[in-house]
Amino acid sequence: MRIAVLGTGSVGRRIATKLVELGHEVMMGSRSADGEALREWVDETGADAAGGTFAEAAAAAELVFNCTAGTASLDALTAAGADNLAGKVLVDVANPLDFSGGMPPTLSICNDDSLGERIQAAFPEAKVVKSLNTVNNQVMTEPERLPGPHNVFVCGEDEEAKGKVTDLLVEFGWPRESIVDLGGISAARGAEMYLPLWLALMGALGTADFNIQVRVP
Amino acid sequence: MRIAVLGTGSVGRRIATKLVELGHEVMMGSRSADGEALREWVDETGADAAGGTFAEAAAAAELVFNCTAGTASLDALTAAGADNLAGKVLVDVANPLDFSGGMPPTLSICNDDSLGERIQAAFPEAKVVKSLNTVNNQVMTEPERLPGPHNVFVCGEDEEAKGKVTDLLVEFGWPRESIVDLGGISAARGAEMYLPLWLALMGALGTADFNIQVRVP
Repeated sequence: MRIAVLGTGSVGRRIATKLVELGHEVMMGSRSADGEALREWVDETGADAAGGTFAEAAAAAELVFNCTAGTASLDALTAAGADNLAGKVLVDVANPLDFSGGMPPTLSICNDDSLGERIQAAFPEAKVVKSLNTVNNQVMTEPERLPGPHNVFVCGEDEEAKGKVTDLLVEFGWPRESIVDLGGISAARGAEMYLPLWLALMGALGTADFNIQVRVP
Repeated sequence: MRIAVLGTGSVGRRIATKLVELGHEVMMGSRSADGEALREWVDETGADAAGGTFAEAAAAAELVFNCTAGTASLDALTAAGADNLAGKVLVDVANPLDFSGGMPPTLSICNDDSLGERIQAAFPEAKVVKSLNTVNNQVMTEPERLPGPHNVFVCGEDEEAKGKVTDLLVEFGWPRESIVDLGGISAARGAEMYLPLWLALMGALGTADFNIQVRVP
């Protein structure tokens, strides 16, 4: 599949590299087409890796990952262009973490709204699916690094889009039965507001390399 | 131990009954000493169960559980009286869920503050420990109803108080290794902001009878 990965940070690089390994045709998008992180990733990754602006990457893709910093995501997607996102699955991996007040970060959007919902509202023709934001980038693409079953979530308004994202998660190594559909895009509130617990757990465990399994009787 | 359980809802009744079963001397506290739910619980539960006002219950206790509705907790604890809480362990089980805007509820306090922190700030001489708010009342006192290990959290400023609450959780049936210390009382933000994910999971699973296990490599 032709996939755009917007964002050149650790999450974007990890997901883009995994997609290339899986045989997808990937263009990483950045604010500027000659940014250092972008060029570095393209040079390292080889033939199936391309780089461009947010708009170039989105225009070329069938499916788009938003891996930009949550507080910059709406600007980045605006730069990508509503027309380039229209009709496409937009996987929102970002968390609206605001570090401006120091540690621990707060959320720049929460409680009666979420970044996932804001993105869906701003780009109504995109098919936004919130996913993967509840785990560290290593766990995202290498779920088998943790022992036993553990869960990842999807939510969004479009069932077919959630199905496509679920299939990609299965390609990443997530067992199908570990992928929990939380419902519509408003469930992004839950997925994003989990972050403060994730951060407290990271502090308690001394590692970001963890995830949760949901236990039922 | 002489324990006060403030709140006559399902959480308060479940915890108070478990404490009686474990041999503790329990007084349930309510806004009014002749409230119906309070009288009913006392009549049902027998010799080791007493009922009184919030202040009577707190005054008689060595340790106090706050099981009131989160949006009413500060008022209830004010009625209990700062003097009656001073020097005592105050286990805060409440979630600041605000149902006034319909479903799903929002949190009346979150992001840069939490109910646990507000209670600690309002009653600086109490030793507030946030715990058990991340699970349904059945799971609180009967963790063995779910298969395999799963976790419960404690946080607070006083190490000895967290130790006492941990011992009580072990009495409830939680394996000691399943109890995760998240740190100081500000980690109550994480424990409380998990609620929107808990609610989304309840919708997805069709049951409130679940919990999470944290997986590390």
